[in-house]
Amino acid sequence: MNSKMEKPYVVGIDIGGTNTVFGIVDARGNIVSSGSIKTQTHEAVEDYVDEVCKNLLPLIIEQGGVEKIKGIGIGAPNGNYYSGTIEFAPNLPWKGIIHLANMFEDRLGIPTALTNDANAAAVGEMTYGAARGMKDFIMITLGTGVGSGIVINGQVVYGHDGFAGELGHVIMRRGNGRLCGCGRHGCLETYCSATGLARTAREFLTARTEESLLRKINPDNITSKDVYDAAVQGDLLAQEIFQFTGNILGEALADFIAFSSPEAIVLFGGLAKSGDYIMKPIHKSMEDNVLAIFRGKTKLLVSELKDADAAVLGASALAWELKEL
Amino acid sequence: MNSKMEKPYVVGIDIGGTNTVFGIVDARGNIVSSGSIKTQTHEAVEDYVDEVCKNLLPLIIEQGGVEKIKGIGIGAPNGNYYSGTIEFAPNLPWKGIIHLANMFEDRLGIPTALTNDANAAAVGEMTYGAARGMKDFIMITLGTGVGSGIVINGQVVYGHDGFAGELGHVIMRRGNGRLCGCGRHGCLETYCSATGLARTAREFLTARTEESLLRKINPDNITSKDVYDAAVQGDLLAQEIFQFTGNILGEALADFIAFSSPEAIVLFGGLAKSGDYIMKPIHKSMEDNVLAIFRGKTKLLVSELKDADAAVLGASALAWELKEL
Repeated sequence: MNSKMEKPYVVGIDIGGTNTVFGIVDARGNIVSSGSIKTQTHEAVEDYVDEVCKNLLPLIIEQGGVEKIKGIGIGAPNGNYYSGTIEFAPNLPWKGIIHLANMFEDRLGIPTALTNDANAAAVGEMTYGAARGMKDFIMITLGTGVGSGIVINGQVVYGHDGFAGELGHVIMRRGNGRLCGCGRHGCLETYCSATGLARTAREFLTARTEESLLRKINPDNITSKDVYDAAVQGDLLAQEIFQFTGNILGEALADFIAFSSPEAIVLFGGLAKSGDYIMKPIHKSMEDNVLAIFRGKTKLLVSELKDADAAVLGASALAWELKEL
Repeated sequence: MNSKMEKPYVVGIDIGGTNTVFGIVDARGNIVSSGSIKTQTHEAVEDYVDEVCKNLLPLIIEQGGVEKIKGIGIGAPNGNYYSGTIEFAPNLPWKGIIHLANMFEDRLGIPTALTNDANAAAVGEMTYGAARGMKDFIMITLGTGVGSGIVINGQVVYGHDGFAGELGHVIMRRGNGRLCGCGRHGCLETYCSATGLARTAREFLTARTEESLLRKINPDNITSKDVYDAAVQGDLLAQEIFQFTGNILGEALADFIAFSSPEAIVLFGGLAKSGDYIMKPIHKSMEDNVLAIFRGKTKLLVSELKDADAAVLGASALAWELKEL
């Protein structure tokens, strides 16, 4: 009996700025059961971990108990793979350095690994998705924020401190850029996250006079989904909001290509599912802005994994390599 | 007898926008003889290779002939490690795809490898210089252009096509940036190369009215060395030119750190030897602009190799791994 037979499951936990999703995953990458809670409901991280465990444990027991679980993999913003900590995450309620992997190990007695949520998504995409067989690609996650997982020579890039790959925080507009949750101005994620796109919608509606379906919505409540729905109905202003967003993202991707010259850039998240409204302007801007030697070489792909599954699968994949506590 | 004893030397060739420098290097990293020619004198690449060989061959014969040479390593702008070609190099006179490694192999009968000049410098720095023992660092070369060599997990990053690491061509000023030799606007190297700094000097002298030692020089002839000499003599405008340059480079380095979170960034080239005039503003800007989780973590270092030697040593180091033709 090999160890996977003895412990046939791993747990993947994806901690997003809004939701925390977790699932039990088998050796073939099937999510056999899953659940979720809101991330922001607990100010104390101990209470948060307790609630995750309270919701997770019944799923584990359903599959035969903790002795069936090989390990837990966690994807989290500002996650440090080397130390299993979350450190100074701007979009999470817990400040400072949080020893999250240890907290799960202590409560459940299961070995736990942790990485950046986007790195986890990249591992998932490399194992099961659009980046299968690729050794050089960049995963860009477009959610509440913009995250990234960079794979070079078949390895996730963690950097000397475990935090590499924060491409949502490269500066796209210097001097007069939008204020970011990180405290700086002009970060990519202030423009190209789902919330950044909604922010663009509000700016456009204030600065411009055209009719738009979006004017029926209270500006404070506009979401990227509203903009997509309006674009599909032929709303020109909504389509222009996607063009504006795609243009900035394409500019950023052109710079990323100058760094690691990836075979592909894989986009993940709700925005990436907005079809040609977003993909055409991204692709045009990327090719218009990229250095000549890279032109036409890097594929622009959309994740092949379901939004909810990719991060959980990726996080869980980390856990197969874990040793006994 | 091992193969290094049989063939105790390698050749390193560094092709810069201005000069081509070559040297015979022994197994301990000593340059036992060297020479140089101007890069731009021959429009036909065949004539250029002939002139390099004409100057290199006497040095090889001095050391016992081609049978004593294990291989040739070439560092060149837009050099492709995988194919041994130079492709569409904006700062070189030869356009299109140039099979330079093959041309040297054909003329001299010695196996030849080729990479980006900055990648070669990074290999040299990792083997003999400031990055000894490091697995994650970025080398930035400040010369006629701005080049880069990125090392992650102890390996040079070549990307899927062999061209990764063109950080001189990330866009630092969008919309109204300076025209670059690559045809685009706002590239890092239009501001932070030696020629970029001279361009800043000309702009400052036109736009401003202060007295400056630099006003004694024909603006068209001003070099980064002139600006350095003036700064040393207390010229405030010259010092401000360094601050302007350092500030933009620091902004760029902050973004690079978000990508690969290196242990160190190593600066190489004449500008990097301008001491506090350039290093203080770079360091301040890098720390002011970097994402909080990376603050104070990445060392800013100056190359420990002599300017002329580093690229030749780095290029030559490639050659030790070459197989017989």
